[in-house]
Amino acid sequence: MTMQPSELLAALRFRYATKAFDAARKIPAEIWDAFEQSLVLTPSSFGLQPWKFLVIDHPEIREKLKAASWGQGQVTDASHLVVLTARTDLAQADIDSWIARLSEVQGTPAEALAGLSGMISSFSSAMTPAEKQAWNTRQVYIALGQLMTSAAVLGIDSCPLEGISPADYDTILGLPGTGYATAVACALGYRSAEDKYAVAPKARFEAEKVIARI
Amino acid sequence: MTMQPSELLAALRFRYATKAFDAARKIPAEIWDAFEQSLVLTPSSFGLQPWKFLVIDHPEIREKLKAASWGQGQVTDASHLVVLTARTDLAQADIDSWIARLSEVQGTPAEALAGLSGMISSFSSAMTPAEKQAWNTRQVYIALGQLMTSAAVLGIDSCPLEGISPADYDTILGLPGTGYATAVACALGYRSAEDKYAVAPKARFEAEKVIARI
Repeated sequence: MTMQPSELLAALRFRYATKAFDAARKIPAEIWDAFEQSLVLTPSSFGLQPWKFLVIDHPEIREKLKAASWGQGQVTDASHLVVLTARTDLAQADIDSWIARLSEVQGTPAEALAGLSGMISSFSSAMTPAEKQAWNTRQVYIALGQLMTSAAVLGIDSCPLEGISPADYDTILGLPGTGYATAVACALGYRSAEDKYAVAPKARFEAEKVIARI
Repeated sequence: MTMQPSELLAALRFRYATKAFDAARKIPAEIWDAFEQSLVLTPSSFGLQPWKFLVIDHPEIREKLKAASWGQGQVTDASHLVVLTARTDLAQADIDSWIARLSEVQGTPAEALAGLSGMISSFSSAMTPAEKQAWNTRQVYIALGQLMTSAAVLGIDSCPLEGISPADYDTILGLPGTGYATAVACALGYRSAEDKYAVAPKARFEAEKVIARI
């Protein structure tokens, strides 16, 4: 069953950057599982999936991350917290790993994927290390978008967290040296009845300011 | 009406990077309107919406863009083509414009928003011009994610287009000097019955490779 356009828009209007979560309410496991699958299914350029998503259950780690997030309560109070990390490199091994997986899932001989592999290698080799990480990080933001939209259509609240210290997150999560670095985080759960932001009128620029037909 | 988790996952599995669109099928106006509203409603950091979305109707411009897209047929054949552009700057005028809009929509005196305004200014002034554009571009990728997920839940096909020449797109669309630059594009419409990619098994890394619980 797909959604009607009016249902989608109602879901997107329901969504807001939740500031206060109900710390007592947890997303049921079967719904959370759909979020993990939504993350896995996120599209990425060339299909490379240059990311790792860390779901932080541990209360003490959540407390440490909160301190690296200007004390934002969502980090500890939300039912679930996802730290979206980007691969710091785009190496031949990453490409080979993806080609091998594609070959396995689609039953295509790796030789038949040599053209694709070569194209990705050319693309990658034209980038500096900083450009590679920046490119990977942009892909991670597709995942952030898909995650928040998925939450909205399921009627679950979310809050993107950019106001964090990625370097401190990396240290807390033991990421240095792993080839992954924190890009952004997202808290998910249920809004608190006390969150005044839930009832604030949704503010966006007028459509005419951000959309043009050519 | 929200979706059931199984319905969301079915929609996300229905989605694939459509290579061949049915050039004869157009997205009805009332559905397209929902896509534009979905773009408008995309969340962004601080709410700044550092973007402009160009919907390209003009067939000749589509042909020119196709030539700047390695000849990819989606650019001309899809019902709709959106070029997602990022603001190239994050200037005080951008911040003031947003604060004014927020004040207007929420009925909050601008003075009451001075704290937010100052926080955004501090954030912005710590970035180089290149960092500002990169930050804006990441926000645009949230919009790309929301757009593709919105399409999936409405049962509409889409194809993200990163394999384009942003500089050529900018020239064709007259963007230089406007303060916006092409980030990425997305074609939307209906898959062709001949698109062999529609039936290829969906390939992703195993969940254990991209998701960790901590």
